[in-house]
Parts: sequence; C-alpha cells; structure tokens
Amino acid sequence: MKKVRIAILGLGNVGSGVWKILDKNREEISIRSGYEIEVAKILVRNKNKARNVDVPEEIITTDFNDILEDDSIRIVVELMGGVEPAKDYILKAISRKKHVVTANKFLLATQGKEILEAAKREGVMLYFEASVAGGIPIINAISESLTANKIVEILGIINGTTNFILTRMSHEGMEFDEALKLAQELGFAEADPTSDIEGYDAMYKLAILSDLSFNSIVHVDSIYREGITGITAVDIQYAKEFGYTIKLLAIAKEKNGELELRVHPAMIPSKHPLANVNDAFNAIFIKGNAVGDLMLYGKGAGDLPTGSAVVGDIISVLRNGIDDYTAPAKKEANCQFKVQSMDDTVCKYYLRFAVLDNPGTLADISSIFGKNGVSLASVIQKGKNEKEVPLVFITHETLERNINEAIKEIKELPSVIKVENIIRVENI
Amino acid sequence: MKKVRIAILGLGNVGSGVWKILDKNREEISIRSGYEIEVAKILVRNKNKARNVDVPEEIITTDFNDILEDDSIRIVVELMGGVEPAKDYILKAISRKKHVVTANKFLLATQGKEILEAAKREGVMLYFEASVAGGIPIINAISESLTANKIVEILGIINGTTNFILTRMSHEGMEFDEALKLAQELGFAEADPTSDIEGYDAMYKLAILSDLSFNSIVHVDSIYREGITGITAVDIQYAKEFGYTIKLLAIAKEKNGELELRVHPAMIPSKHPLANVNDAFNAIFIKGNAVGDLMLYGKGAGDLPTGSAVVGDIISVLRNGIDDYTAPAKKEANCQFKVQSMDDTVCKYYLRFAVLDNPGTLADISSIFGKNGVSLASVIQKGKNEKEVPLVFITHETLERNINEAIKEIKELPSVIKVENIIRVENI
Repeated sequence: MKKVRIAILGLGNVGSGVWKILDKNREEISIRSGYEIEVAKILVRNKNKARNVDVPEEIITTDFNDILEDDSIRIVVELMGGVEPAKDYILKAISRKKHVVTANKFLLATQGKEILEAAKREGVMLYFEASVAGGIPIINAISESLTANKIVEILGIINGTTNFILTRMSHEGMEFDEALKLAQELGFAEADPTSDIEGYDAMYKLAILSDLSFNSIVHVDSIYREGITGITAVDIQYAKEFGYTIKLLAIAKEKNGELELRVHPAMIPSKHPLANVNDAFNAIFIKGNAVGDLMLYGKGAGDLPTGSAVVGDIISVLRNGIDDYTAPAKKEANCQFKVQSMDDTVCKYYLRFAVLDNPGTLADISSIFGKNGVSLASVIQKGKNEKEVPLVFITHETLERNINEAIKEIKELPSVIKVENIIRVENI
Repeated sequence: MKKVRIAILGLGNVGSGVWKILDKNREEISIRSGYEIEVAKILVRNKNKARNVDVPEEIITTDFNDILEDDSIRIVVELMGGVEPAKDYILKAISRKKHVVTANKFLLATQGKEILEAAKREGVMLYFEASVAGGIPIINAISESLTANKIVEILGIINGTTNFILTRMSHEGMEFDEALKLAQELGFAEADPTSDIEGYDAMYKLAILSDLSFNSIVHVDSIYREGITGITAVDIQYAKEFGYTIKLLAIAKEKNGELELRVHPAMIPSKHPLANVNDAFNAIFIKGNAVGDLMLYGKGAGDLPTGSAVVGDIISVLRNGIDDYTAPAKKEANCQFKVQSMDDTVCKYYLRFAVLDNPGTLADISSIFGKNGVSLASVIQKGKNEKEVPLVFITHETLERNINEAIKEIKELPSVIKVENIIRVENI
C-alpha cells in the first residue's frame, strides 16, 4: 500500500479527535483512501501541556518550519483556529504545494477568497467540511450532491451553544443566565461566550454556506446579526402558546439576484423538523429548485464528530489524487451580489409590550399597526386589573420597515410602558 | 466549453424530471460539470405515448442499439426499472466503455455485484444515488462524507407510500384501507401497492445501503421483511398512549461481525426525529463510530427530487473525468457476513390481545411471560365488564425467541381469544 505523510497544526479538542479516529479506524481509512496515513508532525504551542491523547513525543514540534520544509509531508491539517498564524501557515503550505484541510470557519468566512485563490493558483486542494456544523456533511452536500440544483434557501441551526441554551429554556423554563451557566458547566459554552450567544459563530458559518450555495463572496459585515441574550422565559412561554419554538436561525435566501442574509432568534412552527433539533445538535434545512426540501441533522461539535469531517476530507484529498489533481470547473464567484436591506425583509413578527391596563390601549396600538400596513394575526392580553399588563401580538407577513415605523409611534403612546421584545416569526 | 453526449433509457416520471432539470438549470450544470450536456437519445417503449415533457422527436428511439453503437454517447442513464431489459442494456453499455447512472434499486439490490464488477473491469463509473431515498444524498454521504467512520447502525424511513399511509392513520385516525385508497388517489401508491406496503421496496433499498455501509454483499432474502397491512388504527392509538409513533423502519446494525437486517413496522419514541418524518418524506438515521448520530431528511420520490440525484450523478461522472477515470481503492466486499437470526433480535415488544374479562387472565399471561424471561414494562387493560376486552403490554428488552415461545403458550390459554398484534418497539 502507498504511504502518505501528513501534519496536523493544533492538538486541541478537534486535533485529538482526528488523532483518535486515524488510530481506531486505521484499517478502514487505509482501504478507503488507498494510503497508509502517517502523522509525521503535530504543531503545538506548548510541548509540555497535558494532552488527552497519547502522541509520540518525537512528532510534536513547536516550529512550523519543520513541517513546511519537509517536502514528504503532502497534506497540512489546520486545526488551530483564528486568523494568525493559521492564515500564514496555510498560505505557506499551499505555496509549497501541500494540500490543505482546515476547520477554520473564522478564517474562511473573513479571508476565504485569498486562500481559495492561492490554492487554485498552486493547484492544490483546500477542503473544509469541518468548518460548518461539525460532523454534518453539509459542505459536501452542497458542493457535490446538490450540483443539479439552484439553491434557493438555507435555514440552519448551526450553533450548538445557543441551541443548548434555548432548549434548556424551552424544556425546563430556565432563564437565559441560568441556562448559559449550565452550558458553561457542561462544556457547551466557553468562559467568554460572546461569539456564540451574540451570533458571530453562526454568522461566519452562514457566510461559508452562502458562498458555496450561491457562488458568491459574502462579506460577513453584510449579514444581519442578532444574538439570543434578549430572549426570556416569558417569550418562550408565549411562543409555545402560539405553537412556536424559538431557535437561533441562520438564514440565506436568493431572490431575483439579491441575497437575504440574517442570523437572529426566530419563532418557527413547533411541528417543523427544525423545531425538534435539541441541545447541542445542529441541523441545516436547504431548499433546492429540484430536490425541494432537504435537512441534514447531526452533531455540530465535539472531537469525534468534527474529527469525522476532517478525516473524511483527508480521505477525499487522497482519493482525488495528491499528485495529479485538477480543480473542477467553476464559475468565478459573484462578488457583486446585492444584499437585501433588513428593511425589506418580509416576516411575521412577535411583539411583546408592557402597557398600562387602560381601556383603549389595544385600540390605539392596533390603529398604529393598521396605519403602517401591519395586519395582526393574534393578540394575547393577560393579567387584568393590574397596573402593568403584557400585550402580545403576532402579525401577518409584513415588511420590517413597517414594523419599525409602527414601533416608533407605539413607543410614544402614554399607555405603553415598554417594548419588551420583538422576535421574527419564520413562515416555514 | 467541452461537450458531452448522453442517453436516457426511459422517459417516465424520473426521466421527465431529469429532462426538466437539464433544461432549467442548464447554465449552472454546465459550469459545475465543465460540460455542455446534450441528450443525444432517449429510449422509450412506445414512440406515440403522450408525454409531459416537450422532447424533440428526432432524439426519441425504440432501439437500444442506436445508443449502444454510438460511441459519441459517453454516459447512459438507466431509468427504466426492473431487471430486464435494464440489466442487459447496462451491461452492454459498460462493455462499450460508457459510464452508467441508474436509479434501479431492484436491479442493484438483487444483481448489483455482477454490474459493479463489470463496471470495475471496464474502468467505467457506475453511480446510483437516486436508487435510495430519491433526492436525499445518502449514498454520497456513506461513500464520500463518512469514510472516516465505521458505520454501526442505519435506521431508515425509506418508503414514502407506507409513510404517507401511516401518517394519515396517525394524524386522522384512518384505518389502513382508507389511507391506502387516499394514497392511491393522490398518486402516492400504485394500483398494485404490494411492493410498497409489504416492505419489498424498503428491503431492496436497505440491501443497497447495507452493502455500502458494511462493505458487504447482502442477499435480499436474508433481510427479515414484514409490511404494514396488519397495523390498525387501534394500535396507533395505543402507541400514542405509550408515547410512541409507528413507522415502517428499515434497520441494519453491525455487531461483532454479524449483521442485523430487518424491515418491519416499529414503534419509536414520538420525540425522536424520525417520528416526525411525515407523509411522503423519507429520512435515514445513521450512526458512525466517529460522527455519532446523523440524519438526512428529504423527498424520497418525485420527478424533480429523484431527478436531482440522477443529474447530480451525471455531473459527478463528468467531474471525475470521463476519459481518465481511476476507480478509488476499495476492499473486496465481504460476502460471508453472517446475518443474525430474527430469533436473536433484542427489542421491546408491544403485544395486544383480545381476552375474556375473567379475573386471573392478566396473572396467567404475566406468569407465562415471566417463565419465558420476558419482563413487562407497562400494561393497559380497558373496557371492564364486557365479554371481550383488550389487554395491551409493552415489554422490556427481550429476545424475539422468548416472545415467540411465550406467545405460543399464551395462545393456549382458554381466556385468550386472539393475539391481535405484535409490534416491535425500537429503543432509539
């Protein structure tokens, strides 16, 4: 059997997973790839750090040049994360004709164009299945299986941390802070959870999925982003009463040459398959103009699930031929895709107000909605005879612009104490 | 741009879908495949049959030799179904070095080995994504994305007709006959529904999935098969009371070198993602030793969804290089996989009896269960003071052999009028 030497950059959670899989599924991987894979070097920052895998000391290095300058190393697997030095290492590896497998969503979302172009120029493969949704083969589905389709819509639960938090809030009635604390204790959220709970992580992943699905180059800044910190147990309870479940959704749609790109909490019908994606699971719902509705569901993180995607990519590189690779035909990506303004988004809306329990308040608010072209689907008014009562609306589909105009006016009403929350309702 | 000529055998539902997709997504398909695809010939049985696509008359033929002997035709797309003449045409096409794309599950499940070997020998590609679960890219997921895994388990809802019938029975309380009639009226079931409702269709698909997942050659006769004709509205109602939903499942598991292969109706927890796969949708739940649980959900039939898989395969053939194809490394499939006897299956069981309303009946039955090593999880006894009453049990996990022994004895009890139904409960 042929042999191939590879290097791994980073021996954290995913790096350890890759090592474990290469070890325990050695025979299958050899047969399927046609190669005996030897991990020749592993780059780490600190040689003395305790590790949860048993790696021979002689292959550990802290010097990237040990890898770069070894021409017998044909594949570099980047699992460090972040921009630098990951980007520098990847570009250098590419320039030495090494094929690259990476799980680096942040780098790909923000500087993917430069890296993809370098790989194309040097004729090497750059695979990144693990960058979105861990073990779920969504990148391969879009790039290989759905090539007969125009993709028209993506709806994804692609952040496990927020999905864990929202699931606990929904199933156990927890408040956000409590659920976040639990997620941190169980290792589902980081000490600084900002990137997850504010929707940045989902935004990076959506940029990658949109690039592939629409053959575009999406700037992450053009994606509307809103996290889940404003969601309360009360909203989740009302959502249930209306038959909805709240999820952090990453949404991309193509309509008449414009892209609609947004990451925000949304109410979705509780019977929709996405509503039943719980805890740290991820799922991506995709609509193609031939295949119709398709959903992929699985583990979006973790050493072995993400490692499964990384090792799958290594095997793909080997199968495609490390010595005689020709990139598949591809149209130049469209950098000029117009991204639709959030004002032009069409949604239903859930609106929760705290109002004075005055006769006429409902009429006043309803009349402002009507004047702004917002038509109402349901109203819940609770807690009579108290000073401050909640008033909750679900609208029919309307322009976000109209909602914003209406809210501006409603805020001025003397009987309106507070706009407690506005959550989009996805009509799926 | 390079040009390629292909031929389609059969212009029924799927054939028409392929034609439509090649037409409406022409530009994308050219870019992604690197080829302008020309459908040079379409083989039909009857030239004068009315069609629902507008195909130029000059490319329609009733003579396969028009295709076989035209060396400019590089890909043959077989969408006729059945064994002959499909098999003969495919083997002849392969012998003339034409690549083959097929949706023929029956042929692949029963005679796939011969066809795959012929393709390997002649160095041509044989792709069959459309043969299982229509538009769901399950074949590609197993063959390409999950290569880092040992697959340990597959659970699939892979027959749309039976899932439509069971969904109507569950949601609307219909009886089987009524739901079947509705399915036939809506085009979800054929005039002769045997292949679907008796589980043959799911059995063929399971054989294909098992071959790929376990690198085996499964004889369809070694798959235990039971259809849904025995399921009644009453069973579905009891299932709900126990928190279960009844689905026709196709199950394959690998344990200690033995395969467990079975197609039968099963109760699954109503909160499991598979339980919410409704109507004609399909879903495949797959467990890999690295990726963990993964589910793919989508449309299992229909002209465009199935056409999406077929055209995706055509594009894959073109991308892989029609002139310089090398088959990926692969171990010789294992023909000697031992298939576990159904007696050795371990499940929970739902058992429904009609019994005389005598004191002591429950004790008698329970004692027989106990003697045979079957321990009971729940009992429902309804309708007091009638002559004939239902008695329903759910067991803990037990060997199918023990259930069969117990049932034999229970049937002999004078107070037992009838064993109404036995349905396996999957512990997923």
